[in-house]
Amino acid sequence: MNVGIVGSTGYGGVELHRLLSNHPSIDTCILYSSTLNGNSYVEQYPHLIGLSNESVRAIELDEMKQLDAVFLAVPAGISKEMTAKLLGGKAKIIDLSGDLRLQDPKEYEEWYKGGAADLSVLGKAVYGLTECNQGAIKEADLIANPGCFPTATLLALAPLVQQKLLHPDSLIIDAKTGLSGAGRKPSLSSHFSETQENLRIYKVHEHQHTPEIEQQLKRWNPESTPVTFTTHLIPMTRGIMTTIYGELVNEQTTEELNELYQTFYSASPFVRIRPTGQYPSTKEVFGTNFCDIAIKVDCRTGRVTIVSVIDNLIKGAAGQAVQNMNLMFGLEETTGLRFYPIYP
Amino acid sequence: MNVGIVGSTGYGGVELHRLLSNHPSIDTCILYSSTLNGNSYVEQYPHLIGLSNESVRAIELDEMKQLDAVFLAVPAGISKEMTAKLLGGKAKIIDLSGDLRLQDPKEYEEWYKGGAADLSVLGKAVYGLTECNQGAIKEADLIANPGCFPTATLLALAPLVQQKLLHPDSLIIDAKTGLSGAGRKPSLSSHFSETQENLRIYKVHEHQHTPEIEQQLKRWNPESTPVTFTTHLIPMTRGIMTTIYGELVNEQTTEELNELYQTFYSASPFVRIRPTGQYPSTKEVFGTNFCDIAIKVDCRTGRVTIVSVIDNLIKGAAGQAVQNMNLMFGLEETTGLRFYPIYP
Amino acid sequence: MNVGIVGSTGYGGVELHRLLSNHPSIDTCILYSSTLNGNSYVEQYPHLIGLSNESVRAIELDEMKQLDAVFLAVPAGISKEMTAKLLGGKAKIIDLSGDLRLQDPKEYEEWYKGGAADLSVLGKAVYGLTECNQGAIKEADLIANPGCFPTATLLALAPLVQQKLLHPDSLIIDAKTGLSGAGRKPSLSSHFSETQENLRIYKVHEHQHTPEIEQQLKRWNPESTPVTFTTHLIPMTRGIMTTIYGELVNEQTTEELNELYQTFYSASPFVRIRPTGQYPSTKEVFGTNFCDIAIKVDCRTGRVTIVSVIDNLIKGAAGQAVQNMNLMFGLEETTGLRFYPIYP
Amino acid sequence: MNVGIVGSTGYGGVELHRLLSNHPSIDTCILYSSTLNGNSYVEQYPHLIGLSNESVRAIELDEMKQLDAVFLAVPAGISKEMTAKLLGGKAKIIDLSGDLRLQDPKEYEEWYKGGAADLSVLGKAVYGLTECNQGAIKEADLIANPGCFPTATLLALAPLVQQKLLHPDSLIIDAKTGLSGAGRKPSLSSHFSETQENLRIYKVHEHQHTPEIEQQLKRWNPESTPVTFTTHLIPMTRGIMTTIYGELVNEQTTEELNELYQTFYSASPFVRIRPTGQYPSTKEVFGTNFCDIAIKVDCRTGRVTIVSVIDNLIKGAAGQAVQNMNLMFGLEETTGLRFYPIYP
Repeated sequence: MNVGIVGSTGYGGVELHRLLSNHPSIDTCILYSSTLNGNSYVEQYPHLIGLSNESVRAIELDEMKQLDAVFLAVPAGISKEMTAKLLGGKAKIIDLSGDLRLQDPKEYEEWYKGGAADLSVLGKAVYGLTECNQGAIKEADLIANPGCFPTATLLALAPLVQQKLLHPDSLIIDAKTGLSGAGRKPSLSSHFSETQENLRIYKVHEHQHTPEIEQQLKRWNPESTPVTFTTHLIPMTRGIMTTIYGELVNEQTTEELNELYQTFYSASPFVRIRPTGQYPSTKEVFGTNFCDIAIKVDCRTGRVTIVSVIDNLIKGAAGQAVQNMNLMFGLEETTGLRFYPIYP
Repeated sequence: MNVGIVGSTGYGGVELHRLLSNHPSIDTCILYSSTLNGNSYVEQYPHLIGLSNESVRAIELDEMKQLDAVFLAVPAGISKEMTAKLLGGKAKIIDLSGDLRLQDPKEYEEWYKGGAADLSVLGKAVYGLTECNQGAIKEADLIANPGCFPTATLLALAPLVQQKLLHPDSLIIDAKTGLSGAGRKPSLSSHFSETQENLRIYKVHEHQHTPEIEQQLKRWNPESTPVTFTTHLIPMTRGIMTTIYGELVNEQTTEELNELYQTFYSASPFVRIRPTGQYPSTKEVFGTNFCDIAIKVDCRTGRVTIVSVIDNLIKGAAGQAVQNMNLMFGLEETTGLRFYPIYP
Repeated sequence: MNVGIVGSTGYGGVELHRLLSNHPSIDTCILYSSTLNGNSYVEQYPHLIGLSNESVRAIELDEMKQLDAVFLAVPAGISKEMTAKLLGGKAKIIDLSGDLRLQDPKEYEEWYKGGAADLSVLGKAVYGLTECNQGAIKEADLIANPGCFPTATLLALAPLVQQKLLHPDSLIIDAKTGLSGAGRKPSLSSHFSETQENLRIYKVHEHQHTPEIEQQLKRWNPESTPVTFTTHLIPMTRGIMTTIYGELVNEQTTEELNELYQTFYSASPFVRIRPTGQYPSTKEVFGTNFCDIAIKVDCRTGRVTIVSVIDNLIKGAAGQAVQNMNLMFGLEETTGLRFYPIYP
Repeated sequence: MNVGIVGSTGYGGVELHRLLSNHPSIDTCILYSSTLNGNSYVEQYPHLIGLSNESVRAIELDEMKQLDAVFLAVPAGISKEMTAKLLGGKAKIIDLSGDLRLQDPKEYEEWYKGGAADLSVLGKAVYGLTECNQGAIKEADLIANPGCFPTATLLALAPLVQQKLLHPDSLIIDAKTGLSGAGRKPSLSSHFSETQENLRIYKVHEHQHTPEIEQQLKRWNPESTPVTFTTHLIPMTRGIMTTIYGELVNEQTTEELNELYQTFYSASPFVRIRPTGQYPSTKEVFGTNFCDIAIKVDCRTGRVTIVSVIDNLIKGAAGQAVQNMNLMFGLEETTGLRFYPIYP
């Protein structure tokens, strides 16, 4: 297979490059960038010396259409335009931006503060939460790859929400992320001296991943209502943890719910349910495509606390994109993604 | 004034030493330790070379009783015994452990897994949440200095709970702390390589600060019910953030609540309410006795999110202890505590 | 005293603001900035909420000339021009940039890649390495405040070089710094995700602090020759360590050299010589104006290794500037600077 | 191949487990531990849930002798005894401790403060600095795997020392390491709150890796004399950088030396020489078996500065051990070790 990465110089792009360069079914992987074309990739990423001799190329739509697959790791706003132009070519498209995730253009406009993609494009986009949408992904030509927070949140909630075990209006998601989620562009909020030995909350109730979470919850349970969603910046590079609170409809034990999760994800090689009483930490999935989950009932309040962790650049971006590519091309889901966590 | 610190070699103890050594009303500050007596303090803490020439002394109850004040920075379990022996002497006692915070011995036994202090001792203990209990603290001979999490949580909740603006059964507290809260004793969970670039959740629904929070909420609103409380370890040394979620009884705006908080804390020099739309970060109170708070209404869900940050070793321990001492001895509340944050 | 800070919005500026706001001899401290005038200072630095209500003012040379002292915390290149205009006014000037440190304009041009200050200005500038130049500093109207690396290096070398105990051509300085030395302006090299869990070397043999070190060594020993100087970026915010290697002229023991250092710095309240066998770490001077030093003879090679640590923003910048101000105005050297390290 | 890891629960052990579990020529990998036998490995390392179902076994010498290879990742002192007992069996032995690296028992006794291995054992041990000793390694039954600091130091020095381009008595090695080098056993010096935002120097002139470096230098140039070697602890988990200073015998340019290094290592897939003017950082080799090197001549002093970086747990321990195993069993050197750095 011949594939291309657009937006190859960001953190999502370089992680895609790493995964695809080591993927057994990929013959060539072309790197595109709108700003740095002509530059050698190693100049952008010196850690690749000896591993990459590619140059970054200018966007070439006609060339890209002839590839087998194109990964769009460009900012929201740009992606929808590029997708519109690429559709109809040979290449299957996996879009890592937020542009194609919301089916309702009004939601997009409200949360992304810009014009939504055309309905014709949106209509072709399949939401790529791999574990929960395998059938559609296998048939898709266009994937809207999920956001990092929605991935961690939705995998944590799927069993309970699909089975309607939570009061729909009770969901609170307290999300925490490392800094790499903010990308490679320097800014005061990602400046080392402002970030190290610091813990911040940001975009309180205003994060653009909120409607993405709510849209999927509604597909699982039409009675779903808005969630409370907050995001925090942790002084580390990689990793997301979501701590999710909800009210149980019926009294249930931690053990029962643990078993429910074990069963629900028994065929999902990248979801690991922790034994009762054990909780995952972000470092335990560092460098992998895993999503680790734990559940604990709070008997005193009738609530349940669900904890999930992912590596935001892998399961939260590039890894899930490759996982989706695998399904789209009839490959084993885990191809090229069987990593052990780097520990410590 | 002549004061003593018992348990002087822990992080709470060394922070007390720093504050009291620079306090204008303190003449001598004696350092006690049950394990390291005879050692020079600088040997334990080389950063004090040239600043301290004290030796750490063995516990001497009779000597300690003659001091003006004794700070107990010893582990729960030990503190209650020492307090019992010191009571009745000249010295006023400020206990930084959890031993005297819970008035109900059964609660203590359940959450601390050990025998509670005598009721006669508990009966004399005044809860030292300074901003909210000034009258009693001024008269007290024995202070139960609040835990770090309860301090950040209760200051964030006081205005809303006292005015009964939240549904009593809706409170969820997602707390995050730096590693210094775990003390100076090495363990795998505070080992650098296990902790750096890592985010962990621990003691889910089981943290011993839970009943301390609930007890105070009940004093403010007798209809209070159990809260959901979770704690997370952040890869940083100092700092606590609590993100608190609750349901509003009535529809209210962020601006109204902000004003309520401004008014409530208008006479509290160490509580800083952030302007609407701005959120505090832990580094912004690093090295100070401040508690910074922000409030935001989530109009879509009818909930409010409250964020508070403190330096866990200062407002969460040693600083609040000195603040209480100031009140107990008729000093200005801020004496010896007027620090600017160290930034960056 | 009334003082002003130019370049108040950088890290050097905000640290000066903290020190001067708490200095007992300072009545008013005016904040100037060329870019942000009119803005409230708290907007730049939210951690100062409740502590500062100043607005940042535009540069006003005539006003500044009437102050008692002006601190220039502006970039090299700008400082020399401003100094030229301010000279002759009432205000004594303390320049924290590199513009006035090198007496030889050719050196400046070579290392700073720009035109040097006028000789008339340079002629008035006194090098403010406080411990080693007290007489001249007390008489000065214009101080060239030393660089962070030269401060740590020169204090570590002064006793040995002044007494000609090292082969002049044998000096190698391996310097390490935290990220705050790079200032507040975001860039890829100070971007959190590029910096955390990373160790870099930079400006190998090319750092502009090299000639500043060599100039002072030559004053102490005219036979001094160029040194080898390298600098490394450590994933922490504050702190500098220099590890310095030199060949002893005569065989000497660690104990002898330790005593020499103790004697040399016996009247220097901010230099702490560590006992034989103990080495300082950067955290042990965090938040202070201390420079801690240790010496160890390498008997097998005839070399000596000298280690020094400072807080780069205090003894390496703002603290030493205030220390110099104290001397210039006949105050006790330690006024407003008696801090305990924040530990841990 | 069937292999075993003794000391499997330390950081060296778990990294060996990761590499060997993913090695295409390994059928089974048995985990041994003297203290934790019977425990499941996942209990020690929860990040391996779903990836490992092994139990840790008690040491079984007879069983181990029948394996193809045994990796000893046990502390110095224990290793030499175990090796003596295993020799003569079928299993080839790769010892990661310091016990077999020093051929002179007196050196061992002086630096390791304990009795050396028997000369009969030492006589069979081949020093496993893979790039520089391939012939002997291929024939060896017993490998003394190099220390982390010697690996980074010797690869950086080999071209210059073998060609006698440096004054033998001029070598100074300023080494810096992340905390994982200290192992998994908790101690105050690896306690997060003592380590974060801190930079320390330790074992000045006394590190036990000193004679290992000197022994190899002497093999390359018999005129070699003692080096000055210091080690620093960097607040990060993985990574070593050595900054090495030496005096050039002849005047040479950076470009000439760069070419010499390129040529010297042209057949070494894991050594990457950086282009002139570019320096490697530790993060650029994170998670790989690479050693990246840069050289810069200091024209003003006649010295050269050489910089090398490795991942201390891979090229500095487990990775090099597997690289040696590959050679010993006639496999391609890079088998199972072709990793891209995890970046950022």
